[in-house]
Amino acid sequence: MITVAIIGSGNVASHLTNAFLKASDIRLVQVYARNIETIKHLEGKTSISNHLENLCAVDVTIIAVSDDAIQEVSANIKQGLVVHTSGSVAMSALQNSGRKGVFYALQSFTKKQEIDFSTIPFCLEAESVKDLQLLESITNSIGKSVYHINSKQRKKLHLAAVFVNNFTNYMYSIGHSICEENEVPFKILLPLIKETAKKVTLISPKEAQTGPAKRNDQETIAAHLENLNSQQQKIYTLLTKSIQEN
Amino acid sequence: MITVAIIGSGNVASHLTNAFLKASDIRLVQVYARNIETIKHLEGKTSISNHLENLCAVDVTIIAVSDDAIQEVSANIKQGLVVHTSGSVAMSALQNSGRKGVFYALQSFTKKQEIDFSTIPFCLEAESVKDLQLLESITNSIGKSVYHINSKQRKKLHLAAVFVNNFTNYMYSIGHSICEENEVPFKILLPLIKETAKKVTLISPKEAQTGPAKRNDQETIAAHLENLNSQQQKIYTLLTKSIQEN
Repeated sequence: MITVAIIGSGNVASHLTNAFLKASDIRLVQVYARNIETIKHLEGKTSISNHLENLCAVDVTIIAVSDDAIQEVSANIKQGLVVHTSGSVAMSALQNSGRKGVFYALQSFTKKQEIDFSTIPFCLEAESVKDLQLLESITNSIGKSVYHINSKQRKKLHLAAVFVNNFTNYMYSIGHSICEENEVPFKILLPLIKETAKKVTLISPKEAQTGPAKRNDQETIAAHLENLNSQQQKIYTLLTKSIQEN
Repeated sequence: MITVAIIGSGNVASHLTNAFLKASDIRLVQVYARNIETIKHLEGKTSISNHLENLCAVDVTIIAVSDDAIQEVSANIKQGLVVHTSGSVAMSALQNSGRKGVFYALQSFTKKQEIDFSTIPFCLEAESVKDLQLLESITNSIGKSVYHINSKQRKKLHLAAVFVNNFTNYMYSIGHSICEENEVPFKILLPLIKETAKKVTLISPKEAQTGPAKRNDQETIAAHLENLNSQQQKIYTLLTKSIQEN
């Protein structure tokens, strides 16, 4: 039985808390949050606290707070393996004097939606093989997809994730605006969105690229530009040029 | 029983041909292609031809050729309802003297991959209610998702599709490049790609927007820009600015 504490009450922290409470090989000893109200509902299931000086001794403390709070929070933890859950912060940012690691679940968490951890890649890092194995054991108790990713790689992975998640969602957003302005239901586009995401599980994005930019269909490109506002035109032009140069 | 002919041998034409050959309420009377070799495999299943003057009389002729060939091809068809399958061409572009319509299946077709027509939205247009019903009957024989979309709306829908399909795929492509350059397997990103596509079936893209741009996390944005090539920087900067202004 591995003992775990979670620091934080945001999206990642609350999803991990729920998963660990159900996991049979993990004992979630404590959850900490600055504002105790945000974790009050956990009372009876685990020990809760809003005092960093009252943290219990556990095998692994998981810091799931905002990036800029990781340093300060980690400095307060005296014992065990201390890991953070951030994609963009280096392991070396942890300020505890003891063992350090990273436990990064690569997914877009939202509080309301349930998360199926069995489909989520866990990107692990630690200073020793033993600690890496400890993190693997924790991962296997709630998920099954494990990668060893160092701080430099994780930084790049996080950057790649901005493109395939945040910027992709923004492409959906522009599509949504165009539909709304023309009284076309956005749901017509959902099967295409799904298929586009599915295609890159089978072939590389480069092979999957289609469209007027790829075909250099100047007539369609010109007609499209006429139907966009100035900001959308800038985006369309830059992405078209970039697709053609690649 | 509705009789149908298909003009073309590209992606859309060949997927429709396969679907109609299996449909019980449709008799696919003829397939035409400029190059007969491309449809030779259909011999025995339907009549094939590479002479536009030899087209059979059918209820509906479906023109599934490249956008710029639609006018010329349609001018040769003397009878029945004539429809094209293009997202970006107006119904009025058809040059046949008789009845006109549009039969636009909104999906990204690739020849190798099988298509499940039951999930694909068919955007129909015709000059009369009777012809619209005829196109609905054809659609229902191979699919089940029908929308009435006029030429102006279809043009906008096609433009929206460029964003959610072509440009989204290009976001995947940049993510893929970043992974490759840093020896991180791209497949780590696939669950996130899938989840991003799924999320907009539940909430609007605007509500689903997350990331450093949305949070105005200047530190992360600056760190990301440092790790991109100049073209990627331009895209990152433009999209970040655009997300923040919206």
